[in-house]
Amino acid sequence: MSPDEQAIRNLQQDWLKASANKDLNAVLDMMADDVVYLTPGRPPFGKKEFAAGFETMKQATFQGSAVMEELIVVGEVAYARSKLEISIVPPNGETKHLAGYPLSVYRKLADSRWVLARDANMVTPK
Amino acid sequence: MSPDEQAIRNLQQDWLKASANKDLNAVLDMMADDVVYLTPGRPPFGKKEFAAGFETMKQATFQGSAVMEELIVVGEVAYARSKLEISIVPPNGETKHLAGYPLSVYRKLADSRWVLARDANMVTPK
Repeated sequence: MSPDEQAIRNLQQDWLKASANKDLNAVLDMMADDVVYLTPGRPPFGKKEFAAGFETMKQATFQGSAVMEELIVVGEVAYARSKLEISIVPPNGETKHLAGYPLSVYRKLADSRWVLARDANMVTPK
Repeated sequence: MSPDEQAIRNLQQDWLKASANKDLNAVLDMMADDVVYLTPGRPPFGKKEFAAGFETMKQATFQGSAVMEELIVVGEVAYARSKLEISIVPPNGETKHLAGYPLSVYRKLADSRWVLARDANMVTPK
């Protein structure tokens, strides 16, 4: 595996850990400033809306696992398909199990760090 | 606009026309042989499943419009975000209006033609 591939796969796993730890700053640091999220039934949104959504989830316990089924690196851009499973346990209420297959675009920054740039996330109830 | 950008934008418009004309072969020719479609609530699927889905839609009238809101070409790969609106009129039944924001990856083939390679399509009822 190339260092770029390894960096992107690590990024995905670090993201899940930071999310489980509710470490918003760590997660924000893993995405491009101009990141765009695409989800069903909602217009595209960016970093600010992501952060707001993360904050509203802070009361819940989050567990996620991801398998990157494909990763293609072309210079300073990469695209990846994953299988994502998420469990969200609200403070009062039933655990939600979600799963889906996101398509993600990563970019390599000038400092050689890879970050998430575009993400089509289609998790639905399992 | 670069020739590559123009080619990809033309591809999207040609795709919609070929779909409206129910020209399956023309549409299949616009995607990579290893194309992967990602949609909510369904495992990733390829060209064969796309063709089967297209055939089941042949009785319906299809109209689609797309605006490519972003297109980034990096060498022989490109990614694009679009706004897509679709109307499907079944032979007996009510017209369905769908809309969404797909994230698409295009690849340039050895013969310099651009084709759709990966597509996360999240149209939902309007």
